[in-house]
Amino acid sequence: MMAEQNKEVAELMKLLPSFVEEQIPFNKVLGLRVESLDMESVSLKIGMKEELVGNPVKGILHGGVISAVLDVTGGITAAMGVLKKMADRPLEEMGKRLLNVGTIDLRIDFLRPGLGRYFLATGSLMRTGQKVAVIRMQLHNDQDRLIAVGTGTYTVG
Amino acid sequence: MMAEQNKEVAELMKLLPSFVEEQIPFNKVLGLRVESLDMESVSLKIGMKEELVGNPVKGILHGGVISAVLDVTGGITAAMGVLKKMADRPLEEMGKRLLNVGTIDLRIDFLRPGLGRYFLATGSLMRTGQKVAVIRMQLHNDQDRLIAVGTGTYTVG
Amino acid sequence: MMAEQNKEVAELMKLLPSFVEEQIPFNKVLGLRVESLDMESVSLKIGMKEELVGNPVKGILHGGVISAVLDVTGGITAAMGVLKKMADRPLEEMGKRLLNVGTIDLRIDFLRPGLGRYFLATGSLMRTGQKVAVIRMQLHNDQDRLIAVGTGTYTVG
Amino acid sequence: MMAEQNKEVAELMKLLPSFVEEQIPFNKVLGLRVESLDMESVSLKIGMKEELVGNPVKGILHGGVISAVLDVTGGITAAMGVLKKMADRPLEEMGKRLLNVGTIDLRIDFLRPGLGRYFLATGSLMRTGQKVAVIRMQLHNDQDRLIAVGTGTYTVG
Repeated sequence: MMAEQNKEVAELMKLLPSFVEEQIPFNKVLGLRVESLDMESVSLKIGMKEELVGNPVKGILHGGVISAVLDVTGGITAAMGVLKKMADRPLEEMGKRLLNVGTIDLRIDFLRPGLGRYFLATGSLMRTGQKVAVIRMQLHNDQDRLIAVGTGTYTVG
Repeated sequence: MMAEQNKEVAELMKLLPSFVEEQIPFNKVLGLRVESLDMESVSLKIGMKEELVGNPVKGILHGGVISAVLDVTGGITAAMGVLKKMADRPLEEMGKRLLNVGTIDLRIDFLRPGLGRYFLATGSLMRTGQKVAVIRMQLHNDQDRLIAVGTGTYTVG
Repeated sequence: MMAEQNKEVAELMKLLPSFVEEQIPFNKVLGLRVESLDMESVSLKIGMKEELVGNPVKGILHGGVISAVLDVTGGITAAMGVLKKMADRPLEEMGKRLLNVGTIDLRIDFLRPGLGRYFLATGSLMRTGQKVAVIRMQLHNDQDRLIAVGTGTYTVG
Repeated sequence: MMAEQNKEVAELMKLLPSFVEEQIPFNKVLGLRVESLDMESVSLKIGMKEELVGNPVKGILHGGVISAVLDVTGGITAAMGVLKKMADRPLEEMGKRLLNVGTIDLRIDFLRPGLGRYFLATGSLMRTGQKVAVIRMQLHNDQDRLIAVGTGTYTVG
């Protein structure tokens, strides 16, 4: 029965990347890709392109793009935290709680200009409670330079 | 001479909306419009459209769009704070400092689902120092419901 | 019956200041006073004293004192939001929810040096939901200069 | 000459703990101790005591104490970042810049109730620029449970 359940969780996790990439219109505009995803870590990738520029002279990524990518990364990390905590609950109950994951608030620190061919965002779960989860996020460029960090509080209840 | 200067500041402020709307690629993706702009207040408008959706089931604005709009609003409000403080300085010096306005960090609070035909963002200058300015932002929908608030720290030195 | 209830809420609100001022040890260290308190607004006062100094050369209030005062102010404002929303519920249920009010996260912006004979902190409720409330806080000195602002997210569910 | 300088920096760093612990009145109220301090890491300790309690029923550390400790930890970490970057500059210039280190803004996330016999706060430098430094902080209790995290932006210019 537990194995059954885990199989279903695995199915659900297999569906998540295409949901994030294809079903959410603004994520498509950004060109977000789920680079890797498991219970312990989440990594998202975004390629630089003309539409995402915020400073046309210097060709720097728009701050709003950075905020958006880190916010989505935090949300998926929070969702993983929910799945992990509920792995023995009925799939429907899990699905319901996943749909309730939403950003309450967000802090973004812009450390260096967003220069690079692509960017990788990762999330670390600080804590999941009954109601909220707190996630710390990081954005590196293709040279592994730290471009931005963030912290988000998400509803998970 | 002072009148001359003020005329030049006025010219500069007249150019700002089209710069914000047309010269910054990601602002064009968002469809940002400068609704009103003077030394005391800044208001930006964004219309709802399919590409900006974050929750396709409920048709809600993507959180990243909200962060982006409030960030830009804060940046322009900080720029107005610089202009106000430097109104008696040479235009070139002003221009240089305007180019240095950048977001250091940002907090966004998502209060209600981003539902509406359009959204208005406004900024209030809390303080401008020699190095940084602190701005509080608000986002209302077309029903004048408060959707999100934010606080940003910007370099102005 | 409603009048009964309101009388009980009024009793509860009468007890709150002495609870905040006398029952919480660290509030006593700070010398916090509830200056005014009703459903619409909350104001706390703190007098300058030697123990609260953070910069002994300039005699400036310690940043940690500012964070603490604004945090408490936000918490009481959130509690008022709970009371307002639950005014028709049994007193016991209200009491229970009041005890659940706690800070999830906090942002503080330090705008000017904390100089003054005393300081007044006020809170504004941005929104109360079923689970969390978002409050914006302000700290002015005795010259009505804005010293700091903050935003806090509080559990209310 | 470089060795001379490093000796002077070392002297300066030897003086820092007693300055933090003894010269800042509110730090004395908190009972802050510098546990360890070098260019790469900063650790502060605070013992639980009655005066620092925020919830008298549960005997939990006041949120304002947590904010204060993490703020001071971030400030010292920022100061270390300044020293590291300026190790080849005249001592006087360094001292001047150290005095300019101040908190611009702060985010605190309260993850778990502040229970424990003592608490350890550590800071990690995310980035130091010419004007500001961004620090992430953590607070663990004596059981090594993560109680709170924070992020602070500090002036360093």
